[in-house]
Amino acid sequence: MTLELVPARELAFQLYDVLGVEALCQRPPFAEHSRATFDAALETAQRLADDLFRPHNRKADLEEPRIENGKVRLVPEVKAALAAFAEAGFFAAHRHESLGGMQLPWTVAQACATHFHAANVATFSYAFLTIAAANLLEVFAADDLKRLYLKPMAEGRFFGTMALSEPQAGSSLADIRTRATPTPEGFFRIEGGKMWISAGEHELSENIVHLVLARIQGAPAGIKGISLFLVPRFRPDGAFNDVRLAGLNHKMGWRGTVNTVLKLGESGDCRGWLVGPANQGLACMFHMMNEARIVIGLSAAAMAMAGYRLSLDYAKNRPQGRAPDAKDPAQPQMPIIGHTDVKRMLLAQKAAAEGALALGLYCARLVDEQKTAEDESERRDAGLLLDILTPIMKAWSSELGLKANDQAIQIHGGYGYTRDYPVEQLYRDNRLNPIHEGTNGIQSIDLLGRKAVMADGAALKLLLAEFRATAKAAHADLPDYALALGEAIDRIETVTLRLLAGREAHGGPLFLANAWAYLEMLGHTTMAWIWLTQALAARPYADEFGKGKLQACRYVFAWELPKTKALADLLASLDSTTLDMHEAWF
Amino acid sequence: MTLELVPARELAFQLYDVLGVEALCQRPPFAEHSRATFDAALETAQRLADDLFRPHNRKADLEEPRIENGKVRLVPEVKAALAAFAEAGFFAAHRHESLGGMQLPWTVAQACATHFHAANVATFSYAFLTIAAANLLEVFAADDLKRLYLKPMAEGRFFGTMALSEPQAGSSLADIRTRATPTPEGFFRIEGGKMWISAGEHELSENIVHLVLARIQGAPAGIKGISLFLVPRFRPDGAFNDVRLAGLNHKMGWRGTVNTVLKLGESGDCRGWLVGPANQGLACMFHMMNEARIVIGLSAAAMAMAGYRLSLDYAKNRPQGRAPDAKDPAQPQMPIIGHTDVKRMLLAQKAAAEGALALGLYCARLVDEQKTAEDESERRDAGLLLDILTPIMKAWSSELGLKANDQAIQIHGGYGYTRDYPVEQLYRDNRLNPIHEGTNGIQSIDLLGRKAVMADGAALKLLLAEFRATAKAAHADLPDYALALGEAIDRIETVTLRLLAGREAHGGPLFLANAWAYLEMLGHTTMAWIWLTQALAARPYADEFGKGKLQACRYVFAWELPKTKALADLLASLDSTTLDMHEAWF
Repeated sequence: MTLELVPARELAFQLYDVLGVEALCQRPPFAEHSRATFDAALETAQRLADDLFRPHNRKADLEEPRIENGKVRLVPEVKAALAAFAEAGFFAAHRHESLGGMQLPWTVAQACATHFHAANVATFSYAFLTIAAANLLEVFAADDLKRLYLKPMAEGRFFGTMALSEPQAGSSLADIRTRATPTPEGFFRIEGGKMWISAGEHELSENIVHLVLARIQGAPAGIKGISLFLVPRFRPDGAFNDVRLAGLNHKMGWRGTVNTVLKLGESGDCRGWLVGPANQGLACMFHMMNEARIVIGLSAAAMAMAGYRLSLDYAKNRPQGRAPDAKDPAQPQMPIIGHTDVKRMLLAQKAAAEGALALGLYCARLVDEQKTAEDESERRDAGLLLDILTPIMKAWSSELGLKANDQAIQIHGGYGYTRDYPVEQLYRDNRLNPIHEGTNGIQSIDLLGRKAVMADGAALKLLLAEFRATAKAAHADLPDYALALGEAIDRIETVTLRLLAGREAHGGPLFLANAWAYLEMLGHTTMAWIWLTQALAARPYADEFGKGKLQACRYVFAWELPKTKALADLLASLDSTTLDMHEAWF
Repeated sequence: MTLELVPARELAFQLYDVLGVEALCQRPPFAEHSRATFDAALETAQRLADDLFRPHNRKADLEEPRIENGKVRLVPEVKAALAAFAEAGFFAAHRHESLGGMQLPWTVAQACATHFHAANVATFSYAFLTIAAANLLEVFAADDLKRLYLKPMAEGRFFGTMALSEPQAGSSLADIRTRATPTPEGFFRIEGGKMWISAGEHELSENIVHLVLARIQGAPAGIKGISLFLVPRFRPDGAFNDVRLAGLNHKMGWRGTVNTVLKLGESGDCRGWLVGPANQGLACMFHMMNEARIVIGLSAAAMAMAGYRLSLDYAKNRPQGRAPDAKDPAQPQMPIIGHTDVKRMLLAQKAAAEGALALGLYCARLVDEQKTAEDESERRDAGLLLDILTPIMKAWSSELGLKANDQAIQIHGGYGYTRDYPVEQLYRDNRLNPIHEGTNGIQSIDLLGRKAVMADGAALKLLLAEFRATAKAAHADLPDYALALGEAIDRIETVTLRLLAGREAHGGPLFLANAWAYLEMLGHTTMAWIWLTQALAARPYADEFGKGKLQACRYVFAWELPKTKALADLLASLDSTTLDMHEAWF
């Protein structure tokens, strides 16, 4: 049997025991569903991922996309895998049946997606970019655009991209220069260059739908003058739309995903159609970006899970050394899983992978709540929780996921450092996640500078209330963890007030100077909380699965959560070390 | 001017201000030297590294060694660089003039080496392996072997290897199977296979001198039956010695260093000559290994320095975004070094790179003390300090160095993730350092299980006394740091006693269960100490260099040292989470 990269039991535990996803079937959009239909989708996803995505993961890494006769050439397995993905209906897993969708909850669709992230993120990225782009069009596009593009995207016939970055505007989208000139016909003439566009050009789909940020002539400077346009590779009449491939980027990982430099309108004939209101393109794009940030976090979690599972398997089968109290060389060597430090690295990976997975699915559940909860206040609360958890999920999951893959290599020793074992590629692939969709440094500033303080701290208060509710629920059975989590929550409250007082007294730059430490403190605490929810949900299971959950929770509370104390001290001291550092002193 | 990867001023500061290396010139072996000759060697090394090693670093990464007509083929620049290195006398930088050496102190030779590690570790590895192998031969080989091999190695005509690992014996050298059969002629017939042998086969040198671990027939099982042999590629009469290349390994990084699988004596005609006493091969090999562990740590430090310098340069020149309190989009963007979180990542890199460099050169200075100090007790103390600092230097420097390269990529954003910028390669190259020459997990067990407790804790006591002396010296000018360091030393003492009491009560496995946390605690504290020595040495400099040293020291005491509190709590609790974890619970 193939080694499961994301165990079916793990997903079932998260969905049914932790998140109670079955309850969603009582809501109208999901009324046709049951645990049986959810399980069928999960099984299909796992089989597809194992059969058609996983086998060419290494091949697509080795044989990078290249340009041949002006066309992007990929290994043929990519197209075959994505065709099967479309055939199985996964491009529209969560979409309404009027678009050929399965109407699955987003939570279940995201659980299905973890199999593909773990098996082959580079091939899967063509699909998840398309799904994210379609989600944006569904919310913001005019009906005629939806008619032309949404259905073929839901069917996997058209693929999508996010075309934001330009050479001078990566993190700073305010500085985008691509121009859009209105025409009497209703469309805009687009002219400019885009950089780092994943899936920007290929022959995998009938068409490519670029979502392009550009400035309409005369628009205000900065982010208030950016609009969003749909720019297809081919127009509805089949004509080429003057989106030219200017070159490919060659990355450390994600090599199977073609990464492009695009020229729009070099021949003066690139047409774009406005999506959403003029000059509000960034807000529209953030709809896609926020979703992408959760997806990035889940992708990092799935890759962490893959590395964990692979290194666990290796540790069980690789004999090397003997126990500290049994050094007789006449005895056979023991599998390295017997070494305590190897168990430490496995526990750390388990904590990271299953913790980040749990948090990502919790976020996906919030998306379902936001859309389908009966009560308006529940929908609003879900939105607030999502707001504050998004930077944590994106940044903390990608930090933990990369570290987990590092440990997976370490367990493999010299073998893990070769290109013969998949953990090496996971480490390279996962290295992108702290960078794209807003670097983790930007996430930390988003967390402290916006999300923690917005609406008088409403989102943070709600999150800490969730944490406290879990601590309270654990009070009887797991009192030590309940206490430790309670103290960590107190620290966050105290530190946040102190920082706000510091902002009053000393201004914004000092307030944000240690945003990274704030992210770390929130990240560790959020992980401890999500692990406590898992430990509580695992109580019915007296088997090895349940014991493993409890032990991983113990690991997080013993090894990880205590780190928040030093972070809180640093933050409370309003330390200005980084702020005071002069450029010339480096 | 070329960007300095390891600034000359930094090395001068470490050598002259921190370590007082000039004082060594009063000792007989170095009597011909002065600061002027040291500086000349350093300048030559930097120029050679910049002119002949650095330019092909990427090319050798892209065009990996391959086998052509049975021979290993490398890019030609490798041979040219090593020939120039030999020509300049660096193969014998520290060796006696009777061997054509410059008789430089080991500290100065290692400072020179940092330029090569930073410029191109893969090409330089051919040289440093040769130097390490020659050092071993100088101590343990019989005179006739020295006559045949040492001089040509000192001249860079013969290269050397360490041939320890076998497929079933990587970390567990007790399980080596390569056999050695004595012959009446005095040599041994060697038969077996070796794995992961860096520089194991190439056409760069007239001969290759393999230092091979093997078992003499009838030797005891385990490490007590391992002997060390010199196995040349070509015998003194020029005959091929039946060392056959069985294949190449393909690694994530260090791609320019050919990594081989070797078959010894497949045709029954591989001759080896015993080095050191029979059955004491591991002890002899550890002479080389301990040196290699310091070198690995210095290599990781030099690569961290290269990444730091490159990302600093990028941060000064890449405009992106605006200050939090100056968001006017009509104003030009500012260089990203203006962002506080970028400064944090630069400070962290500076702390890691310059701290690890300082520690590595301090260790090299101890080697000089061990060899040339007048007083026997000084020589013994230097040896004890080296014993306990070796696992810290190897493991902590490689952990910090890799993290620093990770931050160098992060500062470059999407560009850093491409293969167009050198930080990507540094990150892949540096990933080997936590693995080879004993994984970092093994270093942590060596530290706690042997070095901290040997001779009734003599080495640890000596180290902590050094720390205390620095804290005392800082008492007047830098009282906060002196106090914080003193508290960290107290924690180490308390925790070590607690662990020893735990060992009495509960045995070895629990004692060693959290060796990793012990390494982290010692690592952070050692870094804080070495930074305090730098801050003290920087007092005469009121310029930007001196201010930078003080600010990096402040960073270490604010952000890093406080982490030792949670680690000490974990250790003092004799936490058994990792030990209690069952294989089946994963």
